[in-house]
Amino acid sequence: MRQFIVSGHDVPTTPDFSLSDLAGGAGRLDVLCRCVSSAFFLSHAIREDVRAYLVLADEFTLRFEGRELRRLNPDERSTAALVRNALEEREEAIGHMEVEASPGVYLSRRGFEPILERAAEDGTVVQLHEDGDPVVEVEPPEDPVFVLSDHHDFTVHEADLLDERADARVRLGPERLHANHAITVAHNWLDTEGYRRY
Amino acid sequence: MRQFIVSGHDVPTTPDFSLSDLAGGAGRLDVLCRCVSSAFFLSHAIREDVRAYLVLADEFTLRFEGRELRRLNPDERSTAALVRNALEEREEAIGHMEVEASPGVYLSRRGFEPILERAAEDGTVVQLHEDGDPVVEVEPPEDPVFVLSDHHDFTVHEADLLDERADARVRLGPERLHANHAITVAHNWLDTEGYRRY
Repeated sequence: MRQFIVSGHDVPTTPDFSLSDLAGGAGRLDVLCRCVSSAFFLSHAIREDVRAYLVLADEFTLRFEGRELRRLNPDERSTAALVRNALEEREEAIGHMEVEASPGVYLSRRGFEPILERAAEDGTVVQLHEDGDPVVEVEPPEDPVFVLSDHHDFTVHEADLLDERADARVRLGPERLHANHAITVAHNWLDTEGYRRY
Repeated sequence: MRQFIVSGHDVPTTPDFSLSDLAGGAGRLDVLCRCVSSAFFLSHAIREDVRAYLVLADEFTLRFEGRELRRLNPDERSTAALVRNALEEREEAIGHMEVEASPGVYLSRRGFEPILERAAEDGTVVQLHEDGDPVVEVEPPEDPVFVLSDHHDFTVHEADLLDERADARVRLGPERLHANHAITVAHNWLDTEGYRRY
């Protein structure tokens, strides 16, 4: 399974935001929505063997489960609506217990650290880093976990946790990419088994 | 220069659409907006040496010019607003003459064929095709022109024109990708000079 964790530092943790102002009032929730779209969509298909976590302000986390998703569309607004609907259930998310807000979308009261630990149990944590090894020199792991940040850098605490947990440190190219673009490139690297299978 | 042409078959050619219904009433304009974002955005930078054409229902075309863009943001809604603003000027676009609607965004009354011809004058037309050569076996051209379709396949006429004009026919991987994801993968191929420079 391919897992992606995206940390959204400024996004809301309550449902009182406008779907018409994702890039402003909703703390760049648009960035996270694009990440979900990149994680799951193929042309006319959903990548079933994918799990994506959106960490909301280090306080709540949404888990999107490819095999179970039913109402996901590739546009930002409809994904943001799924996030908002899930946040309507926030009082149901007690401790680390998840609540299923819509098919394949789960909300829990967990921040970055427990999510990274949870994902790392099932996979190989791949850190994307400008000083990492060129991705072509690395064997694609069976069950990779990619960890990404929104329009901000990781916090010092997040970066420290990642340094500690990362099994590999790679760079995807000479340019610094948006998180959603990095997800697309990572998928292509995995789809082609390291640019060998077309 | 890298050029991208994206054909939007159902998108509006008049400005009377809602920014809150891009994936529905606006004929999947959301797809084209994501393509613009993929074509131009790096983390905290714009790719200046890029030109993107959005062909609107084979009737109008918007040209986005990387070096001149000032008001582009990565979210779908704000890009759609640029498209809508440009369409407010549609009566000013006479014959093949362009009108500049906002910095770096030009509207003209041209369909797919003249745009493909125009782009081909300055570059190597690369057709993305599932029966194409694996992209790793192809030398990245100096001035590539990638031609993509929205959520529909190319029309028969478009496909015939492309077959005729294409200098190379490549596939980016074993999976069929959304147009915006294909743009991201194509950029990464070019950025890395065919997965050799990291």
